[in-house]
Amino acid sequence: MLPQLTDVQQAHQRIRSSIHETPVFTSATLDARTGGQVFFKCENFQKIGAFKIRGGCNTVFSLGEEEAARGVVTHSSGNHAAAVALAAKLRNIPARIVMPENSTEVKIAAVRGYGGEITFCASHPAAREETALRIVEETGAVLIPSYNDPRVICGQGTAALELMEQIGDLDIIMTPLGGGGLLSGTAIAAKGLDPGICVIGVEPEQVDDAYQSLKTGMIVTIDKPVSIAEGLLMPLREHTFPVIRKFVSEILLVSEEEIVEAMRFVYERMKMIIEPSSAVVPAAILSGKIDIKGKRVGAIISGGNVDMGVFFQWMHDKGNRIP
Amino acid sequence: MLPQLTDVQQAHQRIRSSIHETPVFTSATLDARTGGQVFFKCENFQKIGAFKIRGGCNTVFSLGEEEAARGVVTHSSGNHAAAVALAAKLRNIPARIVMPENSTEVKIAAVRGYGGEITFCASHPAAREETALRIVEETGAVLIPSYNDPRVICGQGTAALELMEQIGDLDIIMTPLGGGGLLSGTAIAAKGLDPGICVIGVEPEQVDDAYQSLKTGMIVTIDKPVSIAEGLLMPLREHTFPVIRKFVSEILLVSEEEIVEAMRFVYERMKMIIEPSSAVVPAAILSGKIDIKGKRVGAIISGGNVDMGVFFQWMHDKGNRIP
Repeated sequence: MLPQLTDVQQAHQRIRSSIHETPVFTSATLDARTGGQVFFKCENFQKIGAFKIRGGCNTVFSLGEEEAARGVVTHSSGNHAAAVALAAKLRNIPARIVMPENSTEVKIAAVRGYGGEITFCASHPAAREETALRIVEETGAVLIPSYNDPRVICGQGTAALELMEQIGDLDIIMTPLGGGGLLSGTAIAAKGLDPGICVIGVEPEQVDDAYQSLKTGMIVTIDKPVSIAEGLLMPLREHTFPVIRKFVSEILLVSEEEIVEAMRFVYERMKMIIEPSSAVVPAAILSGKIDIKGKRVGAIISGGNVDMGVFFQWMHDKGNRIP
Repeated sequence: MLPQLTDVQQAHQRIRSSIHETPVFTSATLDARTGGQVFFKCENFQKIGAFKIRGGCNTVFSLGEEEAARGVVTHSSGNHAAAVALAAKLRNIPARIVMPENSTEVKIAAVRGYGGEITFCASHPAAREETALRIVEETGAVLIPSYNDPRVICGQGTAALELMEQIGDLDIIMTPLGGGGLLSGTAIAAKGLDPGICVIGVEPEQVDDAYQSLKTGMIVTIDKPVSIAEGLLMPLREHTFPVIRKFVSEILLVSEEEIVEAMRFVYERMKMIIEPSSAVVPAAILSGKIDIKGKRVGAIISGGNVDMGVFFQWMHDKGNRIP
């Protein structure tokens, strides 16, 4: 059985005192340009700089006392690593984080800052999983999946729940789409609250595996996916695909250029730092991939963790250095 | 007689439906580092991207019908130009904006976007004033000063009023300090509400005219002032100096490097775009120019209008390209 609205509501009760209720921003310029009203749920201002803390906290806080005492482990090079480290710190249990040896200094420092104990491994996915499983065997720690887990999915869905509490009815709700954790949770929450709402995912054209998966009816994976939106490279999995198949109306695709343009718009007009993975949603709106005239649209901004040097290069050499 | 708290309160009534009540942000990292609690009043998210719309609206909305019908004029290359253009648009009267011919495209586009009619002039200050005065003579338009005016000062003070409504008592309130419009208004509002509050201005070391003015007891001006914080180059004037002299406890100075470091901190940790002129306040806190341990501190973030290309050059070539 798929998770229900009540599961997301319980997740919210479980985590809400540990996370920020992030603000909702609007842009008069964007609304004038589209004829709609877009409500940005700003998870870039969330703890650890991304929505991932919601799923991390819900999963870590859901563990039984005995399980929890053995600590948790995960493998991630990104926001999920920081999320699990912080969630474990909040529960006062150990967190072991497997990170590829080529992780950036900023990401390593973030995990260490939250008290995570890092184990480095080779940078290919198989090495990460093997290393994490070895730690599970050696220590009895509980593996926290980065998205393919009902507890994680329900945690991520709390952002949509909050947004709809904050600003009322919506016609459309949109999220970035990678492995589908955020989109699944959002769909469960939003459709549970309002069966008439239209739920939309946005992914990079270059990594359109979810689009293809919905079209073909089975999970498609892309070999060596590449995009600026490096948080959106994972494929759908067994816990996310059925939810998305059931509840999501449409998947929109945006180009790398459209992603960079959207980042620029948000920086210049809304004065916010957002990461490329977040920018796919405003990119779809700005580039007219969807007509929102007269519509109230919720847009989940997933995070704000972006290497400033890398971003500068994109802005500076626009068009040249996009992967 | 100096303006009073009631003048700021009246200004707030006059403008509040035309401006945003901007959010207040905190940083757990900064609070942990300093042992204090800093409440950032985020005027970077204000209309036109800066607090200047407050003074612009208060002044333009204060004009009598007959005066207003003749339109308004100002000279500015920055946020004040956009503020007057938008305030006039909201009152449905013409705005003529004198801008130096070397103004950036972004600034020109902003003023035009709000319906301001631009007159270009040579880039030295005398040319701007002359051109503006000529327009006043020719059209009867009312000149809106950028800071040396009680209506402007009281408008700017509404940000502090709002902040104290939003988060309650403060021990300290800090603002950037250029010509002193924001600091004067803040001081009137904050001291009016709480005579025990400590009001502090921060200016660039390289443009320490206000610091020298308070020390010597008379307005000091600096010849050819240069700083990244290009909104803070103007001297105190007759309407701001007496207020600052009466109410301001201290003026702190920050280096250009400290300003850039503070911008980086705010971008990386708080996911906000702030302009260099805003960064002087977090710069003073981060660099330990003031001990805020155990204190509740209000920090006005004045604006977020910064040329991305220029900014990323600073971040990229840190130390090299600072003026």
